[in-house]
Amino acid sequence: MKHFNQKELADMENEARVKFINSLSGFKSANLIGTSSRRNEDNLAIISSVVHLGANPPLIGFIMRPHSVSRHTLENIEETGVYTINHVHTGIVKQAHQTSARYQREQSEFEQTGLTPARYDGFHAPYVEESRLSMGVKLVEVASITHNGTEFVIGEIQWVRTEESAILDDGFIDIEALETVTVSGLDRYHTTSGLCRLSYAKPDREPTEIPLSGPKQDD
Amino acid sequence: MKHFNQKELADMENEARVKFINSLSGFKSANLIGTSSRRNEDNLAIISSVVHLGANPPLIGFIMRPHSVSRHTLENIEETGVYTINHVHTGIVKQAHQTSARYQREQSEFEQTGLTPARYDGFHAPYVEESRLSMGVKLVEVASITHNGTEFVIGEIQWVRTEESAILDDGFIDIEALETVTVSGLDRYHTTSGLCRLSYAKPDREPTEIPLSGPKQDD
Repeated sequence: MKHFNQKELADMENEARVKFINSLSGFKSANLIGTSSRRNEDNLAIISSVVHLGANPPLIGFIMRPHSVSRHTLENIEETGVYTINHVHTGIVKQAHQTSARYQREQSEFEQTGLTPARYDGFHAPYVEESRLSMGVKLVEVASITHNGTEFVIGEIQWVRTEESAILDDGFIDIEALETVTVSGLDRYHTTSGLCRLSYAKPDREPTEIPLSGPKQDD
Repeated sequence: MKHFNQKELADMENEARVKFINSLSGFKSANLIGTSSRRNEDNLAIISSVVHLGANPPLIGFIMRPHSVSRHTLENIEETGVYTINHVHTGIVKQAHQTSARYQREQSEFEQTGLTPARYDGFHAPYVEESRLSMGVKLVEVASITHNGTEFVIGEIQWVRTEESAILDDGFIDIEALETVTVSGLDRYHTTSGLCRLSYAKPDREPTEIPLSGPKQDD
């Protein structure tokens, strides 16, 4: 095992440190954030920092880096109060990745990459037609992280669109069946293979594997 | 495709909604947070919300839910200012999952699950000896999310311990080679298979696959 101390981390060549540090958090989610300005200019940005915040109310968050290419996304969210989050699956990885190119604000990443904007029931922000799991989100809070100028964008889920066949008996969604991908570091994409579902942990017993479809009623 | 509107989400049976909403963010990281109280009581908690915040300074964050079983973790972090983050790999999934059981504060999850606490160079918080990627972190900020009482715990990475063979030429760490797992929903664990690394996106060209070891010098 190799140890890196604080000085060794600081002394790394800048680009190598960016790739190294980006690898440390573990596997990341791969989502496209869909927005539209007040003037109906659509925008789409890949984000690997979407994180679950709570089920009741259904809250979800993501990190916006300062000066990042996806600033248009935050501008649109603050203008209109809504956005969509769309899972990236194996079939749209390259288009999704390409949304991180530094396009001009008047250029829609949908048009540039060939992904299709679609609307749900009058919701202002576009979702990605090709995605197999999309949700509409209403902004509730932007928390500023004073230490490095990042912002934590928090929203409440308004609607969800997904393949019904992937929703299992106990409410769990089989996102592997949807071919949702995961990201490591800055730029690597992975598919997944299910290892196990484990029972709710209790102090007096070891966890056991439960069926993919969920725990039995008497569990 | 099935659409769920806000009322349909609210009307879901509570346990099903928890599992459903927990599935929406995509694949999650699987990490163990190691802490020790001022009285040297070790604590270990599995967390699926660790997220990259920045490379310079090297910042990393995670979400602490209110009233969760891992409150001892936050108490120890606030008491001592330090903690470790340790990747969960396929060989320690069950022990890692079991740390989420509601043990008493004086019970160490290390002892209860058979994982081994180890120390690096006088750092107060224990890392997990069995983990293949661990880091020591110093607390820098706890941002409160007013909307649902969660807290976003932000720290600066002080040291990193990993297998040197997994660090590729350009600084990227092959966490798949470390057998790091990923989580979906509340309780499912997955292994991964590399799909591709993609070149830095630019507006005027399509992304291309780059070798796992990193882009060529002239890329």
